[in-house]
Amino acid sequence: MDTKEIKVMKKILNINDRIADELRQNLEQNGILYINLMSSPGSGKTTLLEKTAEKFGKNIFVIEGDIQTTLDAERVAKAGIRSYQINTGPFGGDCHLESGWIKSAIEEINLAGIEILFVENIGNLVCPAEFDVGAHVNTVVLSVTEGEDKPLKYPLAFRNSQLCIISKIDLIPYLDITIDKIKENIKKVNPQMEVIELSAKTGEGFADWIEYLKKNKK
Amino acid sequence: MDTKEIKVMKKILNINDRIADELRQNLEQNGILYINLMSSPGSGKTTLLEKTAEKFGKNIFVIEGDIQTTLDAERVAKAGIRSYQINTGPFGGDCHLESGWIKSAIEEINLAGIEILFVENIGNLVCPAEFDVGAHVNTVVLSVTEGEDKPLKYPLAFRNSQLCIISKIDLIPYLDITIDKIKENIKKVNPQMEVIELSAKTGEGFADWIEYLKKNKK
Repeated sequence: MDTKEIKVMKKILNINDRIADELRQNLEQNGILYINLMSSPGSGKTTLLEKTAEKFGKNIFVIEGDIQTTLDAERVAKAGIRSYQINTGPFGGDCHLESGWIKSAIEEINLAGIEILFVENIGNLVCPAEFDVGAHVNTVVLSVTEGEDKPLKYPLAFRNSQLCIISKIDLIPYLDITIDKIKENIKKVNPQMEVIELSAKTGEGFADWIEYLKKNKK
Repeated sequence: MDTKEIKVMKKILNINDRIADELRQNLEQNGILYINLMSSPGSGKTTLLEKTAEKFGKNIFVIEGDIQTTLDAERVAKAGIRSYQINTGPFGGDCHLESGWIKSAIEEINLAGIEILFVENIGNLVCPAEFDVGAHVNTVVLSVTEGEDKPLKYPLAFRNSQLCIISKIDLIPYLDITIDKIKENIKKVNPQMEVIELSAKTGEGFADWIEYLKKNKK
């Protein structure tokens, strides 16, 4: 790459960050808490959202990011949650969402009565963390089945987030891991990170998540 | 992006594919089976390799791809496997490996006596599938804990691979999934894909994997 191209890349990143800042302020002013959920594929983000609608209420909105398919949007629709699907497939199959796409989505959405806007980012622990989508809370959802070492191996996602939801804790008895070791590794990468442990399946720990949402409402 | 930049990108991709082809041929000529393991973080790739050394033998070599840390290389070293670590962190934290990096690694490695070269790609179901690393067998490792829908949501990895290892089958009794549904979704995306179901923990199904390796030896 020559210098000219690097200049172009910087400019693109700056546009993303500028739109992200606008989104953050606009949603704050409109009294909407904006949460970005990032994780590996299959960590339980969609199930978390289904249960959140059940326990917190239907006054949430989900922007779904996927490379292709509307499977997650269909699942949250069944749970009575309004959603908007962004598929990156037609745009080269991008592995992350960018703030401009979220902005375009929001322009088409009626957010009246919405208390929380969730972005369910593309299932990937690497790339989404590199792009600020303007959320008030960046959240990593980490399933206990992924092992204890993931905060160390994918530090950017943990460093750029304020909250880690350790999910699927009902499976701990069948795994060779401890939740303390996961938390120890999270703290190594981001000592300030808040951690909530839960199982969307059994409901264990879910009250902590609902409390977190209520406490952080705008 | 203007046209000029797109031209540069095409050129980079062509170099990757050309080196990939060279690697494929060179390893074939040297009688070494070359397997690229791709998956989400925490699907059990490293555990699979540890057990493979135990059951197949120590005449395997692992090139470890990670953004940072040498955790996986340390784990396979403990299992008596020789390995070479590629960290993409210093190169912008790339979310995938490219054939040129594998070529550079191989130039530093003494492959005498090695029957199988594994690349443990970066834990990510999106980006690694976009870059041919020259393997004879591209393999997706899919943990049952990731859910039934992953082949549909991340089709490129499944389409560009010849083998799917469904891992952690010992956990099925504790999950709301069926292995038949996972296989049905794999076949929808790639009808030719071979599927091996196993648990590296209990050893169930592991004989099928060892048999696959022996059958495909160069």
